[in-house]
Amino acid sequence: MQQGSDCLPLSHLGPCGSETFPLPQKHEVTSPRASAGASRMRQTVIFYLSFLLGLALSLASLVCVCVWSARWRGGFAWDGSALQFNWHPVLMVAGLVVLYGNGAVLYRVPLTWGQNKLPWKLLHAALMLLALVLSVVGLCAVFGFHNAKGTPNLYSLHSWIGITATALFAMQWVAGLAVFLLPWSPTSLRKLLKPVHVWLGGSILSLSIAACISGINEKLFFVLKGSTEAQTYAALPPEALLANSLGALIVAFGLVVFLILSNQKWQRPDSRPEELAYTPLLQEENE
Amino acid sequence: MQQGSDCLPLSHLGPCGSETFPLPQKHEVTSPRASAGASRMRQTVIFYLSFLLGLALSLASLVCVCVWSARWRGGFAWDGSALQFNWHPVLMVAGLVVLYGNGAVLYRVPLTWGQNKLPWKLLHAALMLLALVLSVVGLCAVFGFHNAKGTPNLYSLHSWIGITATALFAMQWVAGLAVFLLPWSPTSLRKLLKPVHVWLGGSILSLSIAACISGINEKLFFVLKGSTEAQTYAALPPEALLANSLGALIVAFGLVVFLILSNQKWQRPDSRPEELAYTPLLQEENE
Repeated sequence: MQQGSDCLPLSHLGPCGSETFPLPQKHEVTSPRASAGASRMRQTVIFYLSFLLGLALSLASLVCVCVWSARWRGGFAWDGSALQFNWHPVLMVAGLVVLYGNGAVLYRVPLTWGQNKLPWKLLHAALMLLALVLSVVGLCAVFGFHNAKGTPNLYSLHSWIGITATALFAMQWVAGLAVFLLPWSPTSLRKLLKPVHVWLGGSILSLSIAACISGINEKLFFVLKGSTEAQTYAALPPEALLANSLGALIVAFGLVVFLILSNQKWQRPDSRPEELAYTPLLQEENE
Repeated sequence: MQQGSDCLPLSHLGPCGSETFPLPQKHEVTSPRASAGASRMRQTVIFYLSFLLGLALSLASLVCVCVWSARWRGGFAWDGSALQFNWHPVLMVAGLVVLYGNGAVLYRVPLTWGQNKLPWKLLHAALMLLALVLSVVGLCAVFGFHNAKGTPNLYSLHSWIGITATALFAMQWVAGLAVFLLPWSPTSLRKLLKPVHVWLGGSILSLSIAACISGINEKLFFVLKGSTEAQTYAALPPEALLANSLGALIVAFGLVVFLILSNQKWQRPDSRPEELAYTPLLQEENE
């Protein structure tokens, strides 16, 4: 094919501990070393800019949802009142969006590549467990609020999507622990389930975002009925602008996470399709 | 690496006209021919099952949204009334979900691989243009309804997400035409923008799904206030069950589309990262 050869050099894969992005093969073959280094550096810089943008958007979402609940909705309590409900958006955004999304892109950070994968795997599992716990407590907040008011649970489409996202997340975490972290799972099973884990991971984030958007939208229609026209949702009072912006920030964060996950050059070298060897994940990798 | 060699055979890429999935390289090297054929056949069968599942889910979504608008919401008109609004969910689901999602996975169908790519590229562009036109008419339906009632446009988070999805879709279509279909765009620009096109394509589908979920949820809260408790959304009357199921079908369809897009083995051979040669898309490819 290229250069009339029937094989491709694998030198571009480099050591797994490389902390900059390897080049696409074509460039490796045809470009001088200086150009290769510049291209690696460019990829690394673009990754970190995307990663920092994601961090900034997720922090801005967290600030927005806290300000909305604390400043506009009266703050927090755990007494079955509307103040208990206020934990729901804060905990779902913190767990199912912010922690989840940042946990999902952890392996893409080149800084982590020069080291044994196991601590990063444990950190990924720990971040996701914390995200799951926050989400479940966030669900308890709204169930308790509904039960105290005598409102049925799980009737709206928002609740169907949200509970599905959380249930899939719990299944994904348990399956991830059993298949990728504990040592008894065979390599063939890990290889088979890794694409499923990656696909389901992205799908859960999509569901979380859909649940957040529908939830914020629903809440604003509930609370911004207004005694005057200027206070209704349709007049876009400050609270509506803040909560709509929260939705926009969540969506923008999701798009950045998908951008990072979709770029194959930003995959950890030992996770790329062209890396054929696959070691059980409790072995000492990349040392 | 594998077998201690510093190169990988490229024979697995096969001719671009192959109509079954090429094997992963490891199997190609280590497995007998019969096993290789069985694996290719398995990949092809799993793809077509996923593709047919996606088609079935998208058709079920279309039937559901038509039944909801026609049977439960009174049918269709273009007179500024609620009957004009009824075009909105039907056209958005038909355009921004069903046609869009199926158009996105068109290149993955192995049946198309044995042929020149150009007709499939034109079909992809035509399906997407039809999807865009339906979406824009769907937006006109709701703008007309709002204007006739004196309701402001674009205040809800649902509308912000929906208009963003449609605007990004329009930009994506124009950029796709200019960069990938018309002949004057240089190869380097096509290579640079293809991952962006793929990422933005998936992101637009995520936004569409979030807009659909929030829109269905909002509409059900609007219309199912009920004169008796049994008619409210919280009591899950038949209309609520139907429309919630529509939301679930849309989400399931989206997950199948993401599954198909995420599987690298299901990419058209000349679109895979390991295929280094890149020809301008109006040239006679794969012949």
